[in-house]
Amino acid sequence: MLLPNTLHPKAMRAKIRSGEWQGPTAGCCDGYVQANLVVLQKALAYDFLVFCHRNPKPCPLLEVTDPGDVEPRTTAPGADLRTDLPKYRIYRDGELEQEIPDLLGVWRDDLVAFLLGCSFTFEVALQKAGVPVRHLEEGRNVSMYITNRSCQPAGVFAGPLVVSMRPIPASLIPRAVEVTSRFPLAHGAPVHVADPQAIGISDLDHPAFGDPVSIHEGERPVFWACGVTPQAVAMHAKPELMITHAPGHMFITDLADDDGGGSSEVDR
Amino acid sequence: MLLPNTLHPKAMRAKIRSGEWQGPTAGCCDGYVQANLVVLQKALAYDFLVFCHRNPKPCPLLEVTDPGDVEPRTTAPGADLRTDLPKYRIYRDGELEQEIPDLLGVWRDDLVAFLLGCSFTFEVALQKAGVPVRHLEEGRNVSMYITNRSCQPAGVFAGPLVVSMRPIPASLIPRAVEVTSRFPLAHGAPVHVADPQAIGISDLDHPAFGDPVSIHEGERPVFWACGVTPQAVAMHAKPELMITHAPGHMFITDLADDDGGGSSEVDR
Repeated sequence: MLLPNTLHPKAMRAKIRSGEWQGPTAGCCDGYVQANLVVLQKALAYDFLVFCHRNPKPCPLLEVTDPGDVEPRTTAPGADLRTDLPKYRIYRDGELEQEIPDLLGVWRDDLVAFLLGCSFTFEVALQKAGVPVRHLEEGRNVSMYITNRSCQPAGVFAGPLVVSMRPIPASLIPRAVEVTSRFPLAHGAPVHVADPQAIGISDLDHPAFGDPVSIHEGERPVFWACGVTPQAVAMHAKPELMITHAPGHMFITDLADDDGGGSSEVDR
Repeated sequence: MLLPNTLHPKAMRAKIRSGEWQGPTAGCCDGYVQANLVVLQKALAYDFLVFCHRNPKPCPLLEVTDPGDVEPRTTAPGADLRTDLPKYRIYRDGELEQEIPDLLGVWRDDLVAFLLGCSFTFEVALQKAGVPVRHLEEGRNVSMYITNRSCQPAGVFAGPLVVSMRPIPASLIPRAVEVTSRFPLAHGAPVHVADPQAIGISDLDHPAFGDPVSIHEGERPVFWACGVTPQAVAMHAKPELMITHAPGHMFITDLADDDGGGSSEVDR
């Protein structure tokens, strides 16, 4: 059997669609961009789209589908967003209702799907560049914190910027900035370096989401805008129905890391 | 009196607002990003926003305002889009109705303004890099052509890609690509080099918009996505009301060429 890291996204999505693969997607399909999924009713889609445009670092929008359309025609032609993610979360009125393996019984013609870039893309690039990625070394989820910085609001959507944190040796911080700045569709360059208090983070040992990680002698915390931001903001608006991927169970696009995830120049 | 090229955008917009400056804005406010304006009713704004997202090269969106709001809060805080451009065009049902000096009698609470990057930004950068910009040398408008390449449609908005053409000496074509690729919010890298027939252009001497320019021995035509595309597409959808800047009479933002016009990394 082929290892999931060597599969083409089309083959991997087929495995997920058939139920053969139900686990997280980290490490699957090396070299291809994975995406966060947020599904909202058309009535809320305009405000959410404006929110994404005004806050491109936490919300790097890869694709927005036509209302009711289950196929992301640009980033993964032929895919079906109802079946091609391993696990979904259903929120009603801002509360998590259930996790389900497909959306076949839930999908409606007034739903719009947003695919947003995620940090998997730049973490691989950091490792290739010799920059340690601590939570991967320790087999944990990345540490995430709610900052005192507000996103630019849009209509019903407003809220604070959520950041992910990776401890980086001081001498490698410039390299980490250089490498990640090449991936604007995967959150891009950090938003803050060191001094967590300045952005309202009082205790690195107690992240709001994810797990704490070790910070070694000579390392400083480096903060990137995080894809949890738009989910948190959308949940806060208490939409009648919101659907997302389950954490770590992402949508795998046909975009190569070095086009869609790397450049904003791609003709999306 | 200060020359218009040395004025800060705030001062220049004040001159325009007072009626003291009624001419084109080319050459005004060196180093600051100028923008195309498209104003549509809220009912059409979602489709237009999706269109811009799906076609970022012809439609590099700098800002979208809240419905009814006349202030572009991110790119020019304090400005008033009803008065701060020298000349506007009013289209009704897809037909040009009139050119007017301000929108004070026209503005409505259901209007949304889109500001889109323009090529002024990268033309200055090309000249600084030693790449000739022929239509500026010849004091003409840039040559623009309708291609056989379709934009990605969105809702009611669909149509062909319109390109601008600049003749470049063969040895400087790589330099022209490098320089303009740094300005994704000003149309970015070219979409096509040489061989106009391949994109459906049969006669370079007869552009669809603008003026023809000389092509010298050893030069090849280089084609960039053009900001006329979204205007043409919007007009084709025959909205009850559409407002744009008059050609060459742009909105001058507070963004520096080397942030908003250059990078998609800016926290817009």
